Amino acid sequence: MRENELIRQVAAFPQTLPDGWLGIGDDCCIWRPGGPTALSTDAIVEGRHFLSSDPPALVGRKAAAAALSDLAAMGARPIGAVVALCCPARWDAAAVMTGLFQELSRHACPLLGGDTTAADQLAITVTVWGEAPAQADGRPGRLLRRSGGKPGDLLIVTGPLGGSFASGRHLRPEPRLAEGAWLASIPWVHALMDLSDGLAADAPKMAAASGCGVLLLPDEVPVHDDVPVMADTARQACCDGEDYELLAAVAPEHWPNLQLAWPFPVPPARVGWLLPEPGAFVEAGGRVIPLPWTGFEHHS
Amino acid sequence: MRENELIRQVAAFPQTLPDGWLGIGDDCCIWRPGGPTALSTDAIVEGRHFLSSDPPALVGRKAAAAALSDLAAMGARPIGAVVALCCPARWDAAAVMTGLFQELSRHACPLLGGDTTAADQLAITVTVWGEAPAQADGRPGRLLRRSGGKPGDLLIVTGPLGGSFASGRHLRPEPRLAEGAWLASIPWVHALMDLSDGLAADAPKMAAASGCGVLLLPDEVPVHDDVPVMADTARQACCDGEDYELLAAVAPEHWPNLQLAWPFPVPPARVGWLLPEPGAFVEAGGRVIPLPWTGFEHHS
Repeated sequence: MRENELIRQVAAFPQTLPDGWLGIGDDCCIWRPGGPTALSTDAIVEGRHFLSSDPPALVGRKAAAAALSDLAAMGARPIGAVVALCCPARWDAAAVMTGLFQELSRHACPLLGGDTTAADQLAITVTVWGEAPAQADGRPGRLLRRSGGKPGDLLIVTGPLGGSFASGRHLRPEPRLAEGAWLASIPWVHALMDLSDGLAADAPKMAAASGCGVLLLPDEVPVHDDVPVMADTARQACCDGEDYELLAAVAPEHWPNLQLAWPFPVPPARVGWLLPEPGAFVEAGGRVIPLPWTGFEHHS
Repeated sequence: MRENELIRQVAAFPQTLPDGWLGIGDDCCIWRPGGPTALSTDAIVEGRHFLSSDPPALVGRKAAAAALSDLAAMGARPIGAVVALCCPARWDAAAVMTGLFQELSRHACPLLGGDTTAADQLAITVTVWGEAPAQADGRPGRLLRRSGGKPGDLLIVTGPLGGSFASGRHLRPEPRLAEGAWLASIPWVHALMDLSDGLAADAPKMAAASGCGVLLLPDEVPVHDDVPVMADTARQACCDGEDYELLAAVAPEHWPNLQLAWPFPVPPARVGWLLPEPGAFVEAGGRVIPLPWTGFEHHS
């Protein structure tokens, strides 16, 4: 398909924009920001993040969902998205874009522009931005960084982990936008991030950004049904990538309050603690040992 | 190079951010917008927009400059950039990022984040955003679209065209940010865009967005020194891509004022007119004929 024909198809996707905004078709898109704005860019590449045999609409969906997960990871409400599509002729570009658009629409995120070019290998870069939703009392919301954790904070996750690649669930990630916005609105939630490289890799990143160490509790990590029964389930739950659940650092004295107030169907689970000194450890069978797993680095 | 090592190197690039901003290292970057914001994403791919043998720093520079040109095309001042780097091991990723960062820095645009992944083919997607600079009298500035042209408007370009690929100039495009901001500040400049696919392809796009037709004057198009002397120079100046000069639609009665007030070293040149009826034409040897060239579509 020629570039111009694809752009015409994408420009016809149904969406309405607020006054003063400008979407697809000019050199830039335009929007009117209402406050501090969070933005992330996320690339997925054929053969690394999906297979050449995967359905194009699911690949587009994954590209959108993975990017939106970064907004969830700060508690931001999506405002807009643009996409750069580097697409070989053997891929159905319109199907990729349709899957991408539907996932953005499901989260009320308009597609405001993009770029498309031929390539030998399908690569999709989605850039999304958003703002903190206003608080219930009208005060401005908060964008929650990963660097605000404090020693003694409890680490919690929003859902079960592991088995995402083996099961194919990685093509249908669920960006935890509602959970992120809710967590970011609570003052004693101190840090937030999404899990893309596995808890064993990502929790130490939050700890390091917060100037802390970390102790993980593998026996308490909720294991996803996608992890095979016979597997080393704790290791897989801690080390598999692309869960796209959220990891939060919470003041420990409020943990019961968090559980009582939790408004989502899947309950949160505690998976570790932030420590006053650097280092990464696990508690297993009542003993504390250095973290025995290297992080999953699916990007390289 | 491993992803984490590259991120460490890039995070050490020298830049300072305003209070309340957040750069490289979290799930999103954060900035505080001051008004309507323009954003563009632009991808360049090995074998299409540059060669495997091109110097990596120049490839990074081109990726940044091509994206910044889209801000110039609306008169926006750069506020921030993020990059998604899909990079094979045979490319020097750090050199690509250094060239990219230096080009952004030259235009006072901080690099605020990004994503990096392995790939078989180098693809670089740069997303940039910016705001209209305030007017001299303090009034808010204007982001100038390509759709505001009126029948009878003169079409002008900011510099000579053609020969960008053949000469290698396409690796060192000069985003016309100062020219774009200046043009957007003038009320009788009605439409603005940058020339990436050649005047013969891009001028009809501006005309169509403005509900107009277009008459080009190939004999008046300034020809770049990079076009060979023996070439069909008018055709090359109109049809070669990646000039990254700006095209503006100007109220014709103000053309002398524009020339007198023009503050940049390279004078503007008039290259055509917008027409009340649809269609694309050229004037050659005193006769008007349909546009004889199809557009250059270097993206497909």
